[in-house]
Amino acid sequence: MKKIETIIRPSVFADVRQALALEGIDGLSVTEIAGIGKQEGRVGLFRGNAYTMEFSPKLKLEMVVDDDKVEDIIQALLEYASTGQVGDGKIFILPVEEAIRIRTKERGVVAIG
Amino acid sequence: MKKIETIIRPSVFADVRQALALEGIDGLSVTEIAGIGKQEGRVGLFRGNAYTMEFSPKLKLEMVVDDDKVEDIIQALLEYASTGQVGDGKIFILPVEEAIRIRTKERGVVAIG
Amino acid sequence: MKKIETIIRPSVFADVRQALALEGIDGLSVTEIAGIGKQEGRVGLFRGNAYTMEFSPKLKLEMVVDDDKVEDIIQALLEYASTGQVGDGKIFILPVEEAIRIRTKERGVVAIG
Ligand SMILES: Nc1ncnc2c1ncn2[C@@H]1O[C@H](COP(=O)(O)OP(=O)(O)OP(=O)(O)O)[C@@H](O)[C@H]1O
Ligand SMILES: Nc1ncnc2c1ncn2[C@@H]1O[C@H](COP(=O)(O)OP(=O)(O)OP(=O)(O)O)[C@@H](O)[C@H]1O
Ligand SMILES: Nc1ncnc2c1ncn2[C@@H]1O[C@H](COP(=O)(O)OP(=O)(O)OP(=O)(O)O)[C@@H](O)[C@H]1O
Ligand SMILES: [Mg+2]
Ligand SMILES: [Mg+2]
Ligand SMILES: [Mg+2]
Repeated sequence: MKKIETIIRPSVFADVRQALALEGIDGLSVTEIAGIGKQEGRVGLFRGNAYTMEFSPKLKLEMVVDDDKVEDIIQALLEYASTGQVGDGKIFILPVEEAIRIRTKERGVVAIG
Repeated sequence: MKKIETIIRPSVFADVRQALALEGIDGLSVTEIAGIGKQEGRVGLFRGNAYTMEFSPKLKLEMVVDDDKVEDIIQALLEYASTGQVGDGKIFILPVEEAIRIRTKERGVVAIG
Repeated sequence: MKKIETIIRPSVFADVRQALALEGIDGLSVTEIAGIGKQEGRVGLFRGNAYTMEFSPKLKLEMVVDDDKVEDIIQALLEYASTGQVGDGKIFILPVEEAIRIRTKERGVVAIG
């Protein structure tokens, strides 16, 4: 199992969510985060000097999925989260050792959905 | 070391937090997330068509623990986070390579608590 | 690639952010979390009994970086996030299998920045 973490623009969320549903993803968590990226001006001054702190509001989506589904989900994200402008965001893939459904105590891939 | 991420109902948080304290867990992070799960209606329509976007407010708890404690914490979560209704949530276990306590610069299992 | 997750005091954020920029980190996500740590009183009573629930507002910073940068970033965090008081927070290092820049579809270390 893998955890897919993706940082996306809030404006693409509705389309991304639908695309993920069509890929069979019916469980995910959405968190509002403050994003810092190339989009935000680099800052040279430090400690006691003036500087500009800038954030972009982004959404972080987290979903644990079967290994077999990872590539299809990446493709769906690349299609529906992209605007072509700087700041479209990232996809990160992390290993997951176990997943458990609290209601039934099931473990493993059956517990994901 | 492992990271335990669990998505739970806000209503069970107080009991879960107490159960974790009894297991010796005195460090964790709590985040409010917007959850999408089987609980929320599956959506068939797409792009330009009407659809219902639904979320359930959930809490994400994150804690890094010693490998030896993982199973006891899973059992505590299964006991105190479960209501038996759809939407009770998940437990995910991820590998952690290093932990550092900022105040003392200690590393490894001693840095967790 | 590694994911660095660090829980810090909000009061040190501006200095930490600057120190990270000087290390070449120009992408990260910031989330407000409710922290529970040694700082907060341990609770002995349970279920139906009175107890004190206490949180400290903390910031969680998440950044995916090249393996080569991990130790320098840890050192920057240890220097700028530390006040010497209980509650300075933690650094956790997790493995990352893939990173993808949504705009260009680039993968791997080139996709991080
Ligand atoms: N290395 C990273 N680790 C974690 N989060 C990151 C990282 N880089 C960027 N992010 C997140 O992604 C968001 C978008 O970053 P940014 O504006 O730099 O665009 P990008 O995704 O790097 O692509 P590009 O700048 O090439 O268009 C940031 O606001 C931040 O939340
Ligand atoms: N695969 C997943 N990856 C990440 N988060 C998930 C995943 N599945 C569910 N979640 C999170 O768990 C919450 C609960 O999901 P859901 O309502 O489907 O119940 P469940 O935990 O799947 O159990 P069940 O539906 O069988 O009772 C969701 O709102 C979402 O935040
Ligand atoms: N094991 C852990 N796993 C995940 N998050 C943790 C863990 N321990 C602490 N945290 C987070 O770090 C924050 C600070 O914890 P705490 O007040 O105990 O200080 P500390 O970092 O443990 O260092 P010390 O207490 O030794 O000064 C907590 O509020 C919590 O958000
Ligand atoms: Mg960038
Ligand atoms: Mg479900
Ligand atoms: Mg502590």
